[in-house]
Amino acid sequence: MQAAKLKDQFVRIRSNKLFEIFVVSVIIFSALLVGAKTYEMSSTMLQIAHFLDWFITIFFLTEIGIRFVAEPRKRDFFKSFWNVFDTLIVVISMIPADDTELALIARLVRVFRVLRMISIIPELRILLVSLVKAMPQLGYVMLLMFIIFYIYAAIGSTLFETINPTLWGDITISLLTLFRVMTFEDWTDVMYETMEVYPFSWLFYLTFIFFTTFAFLNMVIGIVVNVMEEENAKVKAEASAEEGEPSLKQISQQISELQKQLQQLKIAKAD
Amino acid sequence: MQAAKLKDQFVRIRSNKLFEIFVVSVIIFSALLVGAKTYEMSSTMLQIAHFLDWFITIFFLTEIGIRFVAEPRKRDFFKSFWNVFDTLIVVISMIPADDTELALIARLVRVFRVLRMISIIPELRILLVSLVKAMPQLGYVMLLMFIIFYIYAAIGSTLFETINPTLWGDITISLLTLFRVMTFEDWTDVMYETMEVYPFSWLFYLTFIFFTTFAFLNMVIGIVVNVMEEENAKVKAEASAEEGEPSLKQISQQISELQKQLQQLKIAKAD
Amino acid sequence: MQAAKLKDQFVRIRSNKLFEIFVVSVIIFSALLVGAKTYEMSSTMLQIAHFLDWFITIFFLTEIGIRFVAEPRKRDFFKSFWNVFDTLIVVISMIPADDTELALIARLVRVFRVLRMISIIPELRILLVSLVKAMPQLGYVMLLMFIIFYIYAAIGSTLFETINPTLWGDITISLLTLFRVMTFEDWTDVMYETMEVYPFSWLFYLTFIFFTTFAFLNMVIGIVVNVMEEENAKVKAEASAEEGEPSLKQISQQISELQKQLQQLKIAKAD
Amino acid sequence: MQAAKLKDQFVRIRSNKLFEIFVVSVIIFSALLVGAKTYEMSSTMLQIAHFLDWFITIFFLTEIGIRFVAEPRKRDFFKSFWNVFDTLIVVISMIPADDTELALIARLVRVFRVLRMISIIPELRILLVSLVKAMPQLGYVMLLMFIIFYIYAAIGSTLFETINPTLWGDITISLLTLFRVMTFEDWTDVMYETMEVYPFSWLFYLTFIFFTTFAFLNMVIGIVVNVMEEENAKVKAEASAEEGEPSLKQISQQISELQKQLQQLKIAKAD
Repeated sequence: MQAAKLKDQFVRIRSNKLFEIFVVSVIIFSALLVGAKTYEMSSTMLQIAHFLDWFITIFFLTEIGIRFVAEPRKRDFFKSFWNVFDTLIVVISMIPADDTELALIARLVRVFRVLRMISIIPELRILLVSLVKAMPQLGYVMLLMFIIFYIYAAIGSTLFETINPTLWGDITISLLTLFRVMTFEDWTDVMYETMEVYPFSWLFYLTFIFFTTFAFLNMVIGIVVNVMEEENAKVKAEASAEEGEPSLKQISQQISELQKQLQQLKIAKAD
Repeated sequence: MQAAKLKDQFVRIRSNKLFEIFVVSVIIFSALLVGAKTYEMSSTMLQIAHFLDWFITIFFLTEIGIRFVAEPRKRDFFKSFWNVFDTLIVVISMIPADDTELALIARLVRVFRVLRMISIIPELRILLVSLVKAMPQLGYVMLLMFIIFYIYAAIGSTLFETINPTLWGDITISLLTLFRVMTFEDWTDVMYETMEVYPFSWLFYLTFIFFTTFAFLNMVIGIVVNVMEEENAKVKAEASAEEGEPSLKQISQQISELQKQLQQLKIAKAD
Repeated sequence: MQAAKLKDQFVRIRSNKLFEIFVVSVIIFSALLVGAKTYEMSSTMLQIAHFLDWFITIFFLTEIGIRFVAEPRKRDFFKSFWNVFDTLIVVISMIPADDTELALIARLVRVFRVLRMISIIPELRILLVSLVKAMPQLGYVMLLMFIIFYIYAAIGSTLFETINPTLWGDITISLLTLFRVMTFEDWTDVMYETMEVYPFSWLFYLTFIFFTTFAFLNMVIGIVVNVMEEENAKVKAEASAEEGEPSLKQISQQISELQKQLQQLKIAKAD
Repeated sequence: MQAAKLKDQFVRIRSNKLFEIFVVSVIIFSALLVGAKTYEMSSTMLQIAHFLDWFITIFFLTEIGIRFVAEPRKRDFFKSFWNVFDTLIVVISMIPADDTELALIARLVRVFRVLRMISIIPELRILLVSLVKAMPQLGYVMLLMFIIFYIYAAIGSTLFETINPTLWGDITISLLTLFRVMTFEDWTDVMYETMEVYPFSWLFYLTFIFFTTFAFLNMVIGIVVNVMEEENAKVKAEASAEEGEPSLKQISQQISELQKQLQQLKIAKAD
């Protein structure tokens, strides 16, 4: 009896607008606290921060607890990605940070509490979902780009290793150097250095820039076209559904019926 | 009687093409004057500039005065955003600049008189309005990007603070450093420095660049798709309105009427 | 009689495919000659180059002469933009280059003979025309961007002049510095320098980057949307013209006619 | 009899899913081996690598052999671009690398075995084909950009040669310097240097950046529009084919038939 009453109250709390705003405020406050800790702080301040940290953790635990109790079927709670996401973030940030060695990791983990903002604000959730949906489209272009990178990195570390081992020492470093070249970051310094030994090595850089830019362009266009098609199809379907606009198929059927009627008229006359 | 006559004259002045051109000329001249003041000037020149400055201020006041008197309903004058905008810019630029301390601020304020160009030229006004309209669409993507920035800045200032305090001292500086990384400005210098202590910190930079570029791409595409849809819908509606092209619904109704007529014919025959 | 015969022959030459290829070859050769002159050359080579230069000039003159004679109505020759363009380039490159002072200018002028490639190859001509057509669309966005640049340059040269006169000395230099900031070229160096005096000057740079990038984005989208609409409309019109696809209006008229026929049938029956 | 049996077995092997996965694994392993060789290795390791290298080569030869034998008509095997591509890569990588002089080239050639990934994975093959198809569209824009580059390079190497021969020595170096300017890589250093001699040389750089960016923009838009049109047309055709949606032409014909029937009715009545 008591439990059912408590549950009802929790359901009411969960759907309360003020409660929502309060949760968002605590998340923002938790983010600011993480930021504040990067500044120099007196020991008094540090103790206050430590206290506030625990308050936030307890508040988040309570909030998730309320949401869990308010859930009609307990099994469904963990079926929602965002509930699991929230629970994980809160649980992980409970790792004690008293030990000096773990202190750094504990601080880093607390940063991710900012991500709860995404699970709370529906618009951000939609945005993230749409980003994740675009991922598979990106997949193969990324693979193609990686193949281009890999071939150029293998050539680069074979030819230029003796020229500058810090840039072309092995394939991993070469991949990093090529990423730098793709972002145009001091890429001419890298090029001029190798051009002193191999005067035609500008061909290596120019073709690389051409291929990667081209692949990137293709990626962008691919996404644009896909997103557009889906959006357009959705908008069109909605528009015709709203206006009660018939399809060409329906009109064709109307005419066929007309034809049948006319046929009947003819037969009737013939009789 | 006299006031009504004056008002009529002001209405005529306001809609005069020559007056418009003169106002634009004074705005351009005012912009040039602001530019000229950044050069070294002799004291005679300075005095002339000072005099011209007052002439421009008085001219702008007069112009707004004419527009205010010419307005049929005085209340509506300040309902227009652009009138308020113009009045504010002119009034603020009237702050006396004789005091040496205020001189700098007064000069800066005068710069914004160039913005009156936007309120005078309709095409620029349309452009600005369309930019402002795109703002809410940008809002949530900007928030998502800020969350990404904030998390990376918190991690950065926690891990790299001891390596380079001028770049990673606290969260504000870290945010600025990350913006620099996003613009690819000497970002490898920042990375190579931290890679000496944390050899795997390239992961930090590469994932950051990937996430922010991806979010930015999404933002661009989002805007493109939205703008396009609206434009296309507008163009289509205009085109069919012009050509008197019937909708599928209208055609369906035409056929239904035909069917009714045929039905009547049948009934008439049956009689 | 002789003149008419010559004209006929010239018309035949002009439309000869081989002649076309030969003209393109001479243009490419002329471009290579310009390029070759930037290398060190022996005096013998220089003399050969000088001779070739005159050969090219005379060839171009002859070619334009042929095209002029072959033109049926002489007046129309100079009505074509590309004919005027060709003639101007050839005439200007005839300026004697013997004088040592004029030699540099004469060499520079010869460079523009490469532009004749555009007037000869139709695909390039179409491309250039489409670029020129996009210009007016760009106009107002460019003006808006210039206003943003001007305001920031005026503020920059007022506040930062004493910090670094080579970057912020007057409004012209400031405009150049801001263009540099927009291309992200060592913009942090510029920023860090002013941040030492005005710690909040990062706001100046970040808002500037935001506004200009935003305006640029708008420009790109504007062009994309415009180009797309025109292209789509063209493609659609062509497709329906090809397939003999009737418009909705035509179908509506067909049904109306049907209705009239039915009406006549009814009346006939009533009689 | 024996040969036919072997062929059947080979056909079965070729279409085996496990065999496919094994081939992809060997390609990835071969890529990793190329990467591993860029690291320092003990002589034992080198010998193992050498052995593995030969194993990969023999495996690839066997695999292509199986595919060749399994082919029903031997002539068709080399008609497929991807078969020729695979065979070439494998044959070229068989060049012996024992000689110290050829060792480097042999290592470089082995890198290209990574490209076999593209011929094996169908999605990558489609991607590459679509990239190649976009090429002709790019052609003329690239030519136009090259003309712009060439003219600016000729002007640059004529005017600035004496200022900095390493940047503007001849037309080839100037082209490279201009490409650097287009990627915004330390372009202001290049500009400031020439501005000391020619104070107005910023015009040279700004117009160059404007023209090349503009041409690039046009290229991007051109591709976007083209890709989109094709995609949209394809999607639309598929959609109407799926739904059995009639065309406007078919509906018009239906109505015409109706009209004929009505005509017959009229005639019948008149009789």
